[in-house]
Amino acid sequence: MPGRRGHAGRWDRGESGYMARVVQKYGGSSVATAERIKAVAARLAAARDAGDDVIVVVSAMGDTTDDLIDLAGQVSRAPGGRDLDLLLSTGEIVSSTLLSMCLRDMGYDAVALTGQQAGIRTDSFYSRARIVDIDSGRIEQELRSGRIAIVAGFQGVTHDLDVTTLGRGGSDTTAVAIAIAVKAAACEIFTDVDGIYTADPRVIPTARKLDRIAHEEMLELAKLGARVMHGRAVELAELFDMDIVVRSSFNDESGTVITRGEDMEKDAQRIRGIAVDTDVAKVSVLGIPDRPGIAHGLFQPLADDNINIDVIVQNISHDGITDISFTVSRDDLAKTLELVEGACQALGAADVLHFANLAKVSIVGTGIQSTPGVAARMFGALAEPAINIESITTSEIRITCLVHEDDANRAAQVLHQAFELDQPEE
Amino acid sequence: MPGRRGHAGRWDRGESGYMARVVQKYGGSSVATAERIKAVAARLAAARDAGDDVIVVVSAMGDTTDDLIDLAGQVSRAPGGRDLDLLLSTGEIVSSTLLSMCLRDMGYDAVALTGQQAGIRTDSFYSRARIVDIDSGRIEQELRSGRIAIVAGFQGVTHDLDVTTLGRGGSDTTAVAIAIAVKAAACEIFTDVDGIYTADPRVIPTARKLDRIAHEEMLELAKLGARVMHGRAVELAELFDMDIVVRSSFNDESGTVITRGEDMEKDAQRIRGIAVDTDVAKVSVLGIPDRPGIAHGLFQPLADDNINIDVIVQNISHDGITDISFTVSRDDLAKTLELVEGACQALGAADVLHFANLAKVSIVGTGIQSTPGVAARMFGALAEPAINIESITTSEIRITCLVHEDDANRAAQVLHQAFELDQPEE
Repeated sequence: MPGRRGHAGRWDRGESGYMARVVQKYGGSSVATAERIKAVAARLAAARDAGDDVIVVVSAMGDTTDDLIDLAGQVSRAPGGRDLDLLLSTGEIVSSTLLSMCLRDMGYDAVALTGQQAGIRTDSFYSRARIVDIDSGRIEQELRSGRIAIVAGFQGVTHDLDVTTLGRGGSDTTAVAIAIAVKAAACEIFTDVDGIYTADPRVIPTARKLDRIAHEEMLELAKLGARVMHGRAVELAELFDMDIVVRSSFNDESGTVITRGEDMEKDAQRIRGIAVDTDVAKVSVLGIPDRPGIAHGLFQPLADDNINIDVIVQNISHDGITDISFTVSRDDLAKTLELVEGACQALGAADVLHFANLAKVSIVGTGIQSTPGVAARMFGALAEPAINIESITTSEIRITCLVHEDDANRAAQVLHQAFELDQPEE
Repeated sequence: MPGRRGHAGRWDRGESGYMARVVQKYGGSSVATAERIKAVAARLAAARDAGDDVIVVVSAMGDTTDDLIDLAGQVSRAPGGRDLDLLLSTGEIVSSTLLSMCLRDMGYDAVALTGQQAGIRTDSFYSRARIVDIDSGRIEQELRSGRIAIVAGFQGVTHDLDVTTLGRGGSDTTAVAIAIAVKAAACEIFTDVDGIYTADPRVIPTARKLDRIAHEEMLELAKLGARVMHGRAVELAELFDMDIVVRSSFNDESGTVITRGEDMEKDAQRIRGIAVDTDVAKVSVLGIPDRPGIAHGLFQPLADDNINIDVIVQNISHDGITDISFTVSRDDLAKTLELVEGACQALGAADVLHFANLAKVSIVGTGIQSTPGVAARMFGALAEPAINIESITTSEIRITCLVHEDDANRAAQVLHQAFELDQPEE
């Protein structure tokens, strides 16, 4: 293992003795109450006492964001855009200022910074803005003054100083982006779980916490319903080679390090985890003429309405007629059917079917493509308890099977066993 | 009356037919719930429909500010300074964004602006910052785009872009300052009362709403416990000759116009109102050597601790010994006694007495100094029901008597009658 990295937390210093610069991010459940804010403050104080430069990114307290969205829904049928972002940004300002006050009360110098004050510039796509630049001047200045810098997550500001938000889980992205900007040793994501598991421990009691996982593996798991980390944050970390440590804010366990795949070649043969996503509905368009432009005619209306489609399967055509199936999230099903039925009339399709009770079960690991027999092993494991596979899609590091919702947990269990995920890594 | 001013509300246009530019400010009770926000939005929509350029300043919803202070008190024994200001500023951002979303939902173009976005620059005295400059460029730009500009009250930003608050009632100051900056015809303060009354209607049922009152008269009433308007806002309006209209957000009554004294010469002989302040404690220092520097030695420690003193009375000295009495607010009494007793040991005073159960009863009117007999009439009115006067102080437009708390309402009643305040203005 390269010397510049340890296993968790006290990066660098553990091996080199140097003072570390760390970014710690605390999610909404970690700052949900005054008592929890005090516990986070104690953890930050300990890091400061150890001599670390500490930068903190916080989410809004508990359900604050949802409560604000509810409030907006009471005055507007379709709250959104600039005003909603400005509204939601207040949640993180509240938690960051409370944490700063708590630290000062404990005798530590601290300062709360809005996204703007922290120098986070974004584009102007409200509710899903992307960070374009971080001017870390103010943060550096506060650190030089010996302060703990507490940054309101999830938000930034446009060129015109309008406040934006980064979308769900955006505070993870804030934390990773700041870690990159200030050249931190690592970005620690404190949450209400101990780390990344081989599967959901509520479903599979033998699920094991991973010590390490590659960025791209984590990306697949994040996309597929492992809700611990926001995918965009992992993408960013991968791009700039930043280690992320996912750990619990309620104990001192070392958590899971999300790191470069190349550092993990010895693990390459392994499947790293299993993800289950039950928020899946399938739509099948039957008897559609198989000519150029058909897929475009079918999917463009969905794209225009911001509906994400996934697991597209087009069967071999017979007599110039084919079937196309795809999945969407269940919330989008009604809207999808409406749009697809409109498109089908124009395209001359015979029928549209839908199935709301499906689930995606996936295995993820960097070794999948280079290891023969992984897919066969997966299908074999599912065949034994007679779990029917509706569709299959694959990527370089993932194989996904669409199964009946009722079979999803059983499928995860047999796959977890078949790939020996409950066995400790050597 | 000068032609450029009407009586209320639709300033200018009433007489000239021109489009008006109005600033409307809504207090916390006017935006306390989603329903009330909708009612405010309807009022703004009506102004917009009438062709007005509309700028709105809002306070935080209901008890939001107090709730945030409570929350801060749960993590810090002495919340304050920069972090508290940033925390409290979120309350007005929430109400302004909700109001903007509500208007957009009704089909009106609107935009919510933070203090910073509205160009409100302040000094850096947190929790009591003063506005040093308003750059109204963004507001003007939004108005040109046909938008209703909704500004979060109570807040501004320092040169270093740190968020400040203007102190209690600061949204009134925001509204008046913006009205001046954008050269509005008037600043309308919407609140939960119908206007400025000759006395507190809960105490004196015959109290009458004033159509007009001079800035300086309002200032004396504001200082003396008439809690409708924030004093600083009235000062600012007086300085820049801006009319303020105080009116109810729950009905369409015309309210009270706070305007230039010179426009009101016909009212000069009149007493305009009676104010009662029961938050009064009196401290008397007895047997103090009457030599230079005594008052300074007594009051400097209080000034250092930010304790406001009022109604200072020093009796004629006998044999080089005198008594000094003064009043403070009841909250400050304990701290005041501690400081005064310390000072008295150094100054060689004989004794310190205090009385917590006093009240100030004042009559206010620009004509007081120029009208002979006003004071005599006041003392005569109080003598009849045998109300004892503890101390008297006067200004050019005010006479204040310190009386026993139990006598305060009776005093207000007899004065209201003696000065015929229940009689309509001709």
